[in-house]
Amino acid sequence: MARKRVAVIGASGYGGLQTLRLLQGHPGFEVSFLGGERSSGKRWSAITPFLPLPGDPLVQSPDPDAIAAAADFAVLSLPNGLAARLVPPLLERGVRVVDLSADYRYRSLEAWQAVYSAEAEAVPRTDADLCAEAVYGLPEWEGRRLATARLVAAPGCFPTASLLGLLPLLKQGLIETSGIVIDAKTGTSGGGRAAKENLLLAEAAEAIAPYGVVGHRHTSEIEQIATQVAGQPIQLQFTPHLVPMVRGLLATLYARLRDPGLTAEDCRTVLSSAYPNSPCVQVLPVGTYPSTKWVRQTNRALLSVQADPRTGQLIVMGAIDNLVKGQAGQGVQCLNLMAGLEATAGLPLLPFYP
Amino acid sequence: MARKRVAVIGASGYGGLQTLRLLQGHPGFEVSFLGGERSSGKRWSAITPFLPLPGDPLVQSPDPDAIAAAADFAVLSLPNGLAARLVPPLLERGVRVVDLSADYRYRSLEAWQAVYSAEAEAVPRTDADLCAEAVYGLPEWEGRRLATARLVAAPGCFPTASLLGLLPLLKQGLIETSGIVIDAKTGTSGGGRAAKENLLLAEAAEAIAPYGVVGHRHTSEIEQIATQVAGQPIQLQFTPHLVPMVRGLLATLYARLRDPGLTAEDCRTVLSSAYPNSPCVQVLPVGTYPSTKWVRQTNRALLSVQADPRTGQLIVMGAIDNLVKGQAGQGVQCLNLMAGLEATAGLPLLPFYP
Amino acid sequence: MARKRVAVIGASGYGGLQTLRLLQGHPGFEVSFLGGERSSGKRWSAITPFLPLPGDPLVQSPDPDAIAAAADFAVLSLPNGLAARLVPPLLERGVRVVDLSADYRYRSLEAWQAVYSAEAEAVPRTDADLCAEAVYGLPEWEGRRLATARLVAAPGCFPTASLLGLLPLLKQGLIETSGIVIDAKTGTSGGGRAAKENLLLAEAAEAIAPYGVVGHRHTSEIEQIATQVAGQPIQLQFTPHLVPMVRGLLATLYARLRDPGLTAEDCRTVLSSAYPNSPCVQVLPVGTYPSTKWVRQTNRALLSVQADPRTGQLIVMGAIDNLVKGQAGQGVQCLNLMAGLEATAGLPLLPFYP
Amino acid sequence: MARKRVAVIGASGYGGLQTLRLLQGHPGFEVSFLGGERSSGKRWSAITPFLPLPGDPLVQSPDPDAIAAAADFAVLSLPNGLAARLVPPLLERGVRVVDLSADYRYRSLEAWQAVYSAEAEAVPRTDADLCAEAVYGLPEWEGRRLATARLVAAPGCFPTASLLGLLPLLKQGLIETSGIVIDAKTGTSGGGRAAKENLLLAEAAEAIAPYGVVGHRHTSEIEQIATQVAGQPIQLQFTPHLVPMVRGLLATLYARLRDPGLTAEDCRTVLSSAYPNSPCVQVLPVGTYPSTKWVRQTNRALLSVQADPRTGQLIVMGAIDNLVKGQAGQGVQCLNLMAGLEATAGLPLLPFYP
Repeated sequence: MARKRVAVIGASGYGGLQTLRLLQGHPGFEVSFLGGERSSGKRWSAITPFLPLPGDPLVQSPDPDAIAAAADFAVLSLPNGLAARLVPPLLERGVRVVDLSADYRYRSLEAWQAVYSAEAEAVPRTDADLCAEAVYGLPEWEGRRLATARLVAAPGCFPTASLLGLLPLLKQGLIETSGIVIDAKTGTSGGGRAAKENLLLAEAAEAIAPYGVVGHRHTSEIEQIATQVAGQPIQLQFTPHLVPMVRGLLATLYARLRDPGLTAEDCRTVLSSAYPNSPCVQVLPVGTYPSTKWVRQTNRALLSVQADPRTGQLIVMGAIDNLVKGQAGQGVQCLNLMAGLEATAGLPLLPFYP
Repeated sequence: MARKRVAVIGASGYGGLQTLRLLQGHPGFEVSFLGGERSSGKRWSAITPFLPLPGDPLVQSPDPDAIAAAADFAVLSLPNGLAARLVPPLLERGVRVVDLSADYRYRSLEAWQAVYSAEAEAVPRTDADLCAEAVYGLPEWEGRRLATARLVAAPGCFPTASLLGLLPLLKQGLIETSGIVIDAKTGTSGGGRAAKENLLLAEAAEAIAPYGVVGHRHTSEIEQIATQVAGQPIQLQFTPHLVPMVRGLLATLYARLRDPGLTAEDCRTVLSSAYPNSPCVQVLPVGTYPSTKWVRQTNRALLSVQADPRTGQLIVMGAIDNLVKGQAGQGVQCLNLMAGLEATAGLPLLPFYP
Repeated sequence: MARKRVAVIGASGYGGLQTLRLLQGHPGFEVSFLGGERSSGKRWSAITPFLPLPGDPLVQSPDPDAIAAAADFAVLSLPNGLAARLVPPLLERGVRVVDLSADYRYRSLEAWQAVYSAEAEAVPRTDADLCAEAVYGLPEWEGRRLATARLVAAPGCFPTASLLGLLPLLKQGLIETSGIVIDAKTGTSGGGRAAKENLLLAEAAEAIAPYGVVGHRHTSEIEQIATQVAGQPIQLQFTPHLVPMVRGLLATLYARLRDPGLTAEDCRTVLSSAYPNSPCVQVLPVGTYPSTKWVRQTNRALLSVQADPRTGQLIVMGAIDNLVKGQAGQGVQCLNLMAGLEATAGLPLLPFYP
Repeated sequence: MARKRVAVIGASGYGGLQTLRLLQGHPGFEVSFLGGERSSGKRWSAITPFLPLPGDPLVQSPDPDAIAAAADFAVLSLPNGLAARLVPPLLERGVRVVDLSADYRYRSLEAWQAVYSAEAEAVPRTDADLCAEAVYGLPEWEGRRLATARLVAAPGCFPTASLLGLLPLLKQGLIETSGIVIDAKTGTSGGGRAAKENLLLAEAAEAIAPYGVVGHRHTSEIEQIATQVAGQPIQLQFTPHLVPMVRGLLATLYARLRDPGLTAEDCRTVLSSAYPNSPCVQVLPVGTYPSTKWVRQTNRALLSVQADPRTGQLIVMGAIDNLVKGQAGQGVQCLNLMAGLEATAGLPLLPFYP
């Protein structure tokens, strides 16, 4: 069976690099187009000597016609606002798209414009229909819809780690819907490859600090999906922290149990039952807490749950690799399902420890 | 004026090393006795070439008579349970003690025995009177009592970072007393200098993970002081995380405002008003969030507060250096007050950034 | 075709963990026996929750009969001196062995005893014949002999990174044989998983330091092979440094050109010509210098060469992952060749960057 | 005695930040002018909340008249080429200058123009007289000339760590003058605070790599001083490496002994004898090797020497903090001597370990 052809746009950023790496040796896909603005016209090996690609292709300007001529699928790893320029012409030309940006993560264009106001001002958009059509690419919850999706919006890294633990609890009504707190920690690669002072090693190493306290954009993305699954409006507190490491993301979630008699084991059973056929989600035994190192460079999410009978609080911990299950690996997982392959085709699930 | 003589017991651990370093060049103290079990009889330079001390003293066995002959004050940096063997004979001999362990942090011996049960079994104690007498060495809250204290129990690192932000809110009744969550992050030096697999660089680097979820010992220490200041029983959720850095500790605290109309500025004013004469505590402007790097190798605690009108939550962030304000620096701050010196004598307050 | 059965002895150390990980999903091998002393009798998942193995096997005591009953091959990841106890009975029982320790890296037992004197005293050995028989498992130089080898001694991490660049230059007589300097840098995982104070994150992070200056054991291992290939005695200067990172090893080699007219391009051609069929060795363009990150978690060695016409010095840089090409990956590469498979079967060659 | 007034130009870069920090609490100096281009007109606390300065001064444009009105001394921490614009007018106005850039490190303007060719093209210079006049600010070798210097060029970080070990050996004729190799390793703060992709934590962490192989600019700076002290032309091999840490610099130097009978102890005696009155240089016992952590945030250089009788090589190791003894601390040491103070006034010499 011929492998499907995939265009990777934004190839030299972290999302693009991970996607390219995951597609090397993938049984069902081959990379047929490398797109990038800044590096357009350059030989791949000249900008990325550490990841040799077959044939050492040229990076090309992301022209929709050229992409459509070369590829069946496209993975877009572009800054917020820019994907929305490329998606409509690609869909028109029959290219199915996985977008790693936030542009199609909201069901309504207005919601996106409210949260991403600076981008919305810079990029006028009229594709409300595509916002409504796009499938939120969290395969463990939207798996069936992915098979036929034309446009998939891969979730953000924080929402992925947060929602996998939160959604089953909301769906089963185990926790109170107010007062939920998500305290999240991420490695600095989540900030992308473009040089920024605060992400320099000299600045970020030997330091931990909160950022985006109250109002970080991923708050609304988490709330949108949580609200949908809970069947009632969810507002929660989300605080990200920058951790001195390259990769890895941990979400520590606090919520009050509606029935304080529930034990951690009870809750673990609920979590496990939500993912019976999800090879990318593993629920740890009660008392074993996930390290992000355990999922480094894998597409696996590790969940663990603990309960405090004194306070009636439930603590749910979710660990992922922010660039794999939190970004490019999840994109490939979506691609797999769009192409009728196994969800885990080509995706590493076991870490090289340490 | 002659400098007071200080014995440092447990000199080669991190608490001892910091104490020694802070006392070099201190205007009011000189180190007159180096005590240690394992390194007893060795020349200091042989075990610590990087911190030359005047006269290159021998490390001595911590014999109470020898200590009392040599010193007016003693700083004990010993494993939990071991300080309680040395403190009574030192006090009998007129040596005033700052203990960096947990042995005298609880007002009741029973409370200590319940929390530190393994140590309590290994070390039978009958010094309930000393538990009651000891002053909890958080100078910003116990400053006056320190002047005449014979025995000071320096707080744990997590309690220090948590309580400085929490206590003013409880005292002024700004927050609901149930549902408080403290999500804390610490560098690995908090685990001490004794070799442990989980603290190896190969294990702890490029990783973040929770530990001691529900029931970490510092929970009870925080609750004891919070209860005392609030005037009512406080139970809260405390979760520590291990961060891949040497030093630094951040506590992110979540609590519901009793009056949801209060703004972050209002709360910042309350925090600032609690520390008018506390040079070691600095409250940041609203919207500026503390990095642990900003307090690295200083005795300063940085606080910041933010409020979310949507959820009614207050977020308080406290950053310290876990080995300085969280341990040895706080010990020296206590020593200063016991000796009638300025609280900040000999203590660095400004970081070498980066 | 049935997959060959492999026993992994010393499974929970870093060498064992890497070997296990590489054999998961390997097309030609399956792990049929897990051996370990300390963890004997324990369920694998209880000690290693982050690397689930099919069937969740018990760790067993490394009994030769049991190993021989279960496996065709054995990979030994044991402390120096201990492998020499297990190898003779395994070979007698027809098990072919890849040993990751230093026990069989020297052609003469006396040489080993001189260098590993402490181990030699603790473990009396009489297997000089096996020392002579063992194949030094650097596949790029001993590839043919591996096909029929009963016993393979996988090289040390420093020798691997040093020799791949050095041997072609010696073989072609490009450099003077005296005055060679190898300045090497390794991540802390090279020190193993057993807890040691100097490998704690708090000690090793934010620090670089030399160790084993003059006389490090790998000096003699490098010299043995260099002497053999050069056809004359080689003595060189080798200095390792501990770098604050988990994985990665870089050897920077300095040697004087015999013909100062040779250019870096000339030397690059010599290096490339030495590895025409070696997929695990890649020679970079002149002016591109290898980062250990470019080979992280791969079995690839990156070489680069530069020449200084002013000084007549040649600088050769070699980067590997110390736990993969420097240890377990090289072991699997040897296994592949012993079993008649492709050298790279099951071995990752491309990094997940960053 | 009134404290001397110092202007710090380029205040928000790492060199400026260290200088400011070191001058806080300095017994002989006070900061009287903060200069910066980008941050001109801003309140200091707005750009640097972590280093509060008395009076929270405004950052000002570095106008020579304004500087001269406010200050007796100026420390310039500016990009190469820019200092040369400011130095002449400052000297004319009677301000004595310590320049942290490379602009005045060469005795001849032509030499500077040859090495810093890009800067020389961008900034036409005619101040050959100032190049000749400037004192190279390595106080251990130029101490006497500093007392009356108008213009001091503080050495580069690599030259400082290299020369302190090398110069005594050359002066005493202990080593052969050809074939010297310096393999150096630096933390990423040496690359400055301006955002660059290769210095991002995500890029530089978990990696070590050489850069500037053959021809790094500091080669010529080291050779100039070495030639001067040796009394004959010295050409050597210098290779820097980027290490995943914030601060610290280690130079490992290899040279052949002229008399192979010399022992490490002999050489250590030579090194020690070169620095009898140099409190900022400490020579370690033979067999003790310096970690950069031992000098972190101090103005001390640690030297160690080892000899290999087999190869006749001498290995000299020098460790410094690249931002203190390698930059701003050395600048303050120069300021001290220019102002007639003790060399170590206001300079920390003991580390906070770990």
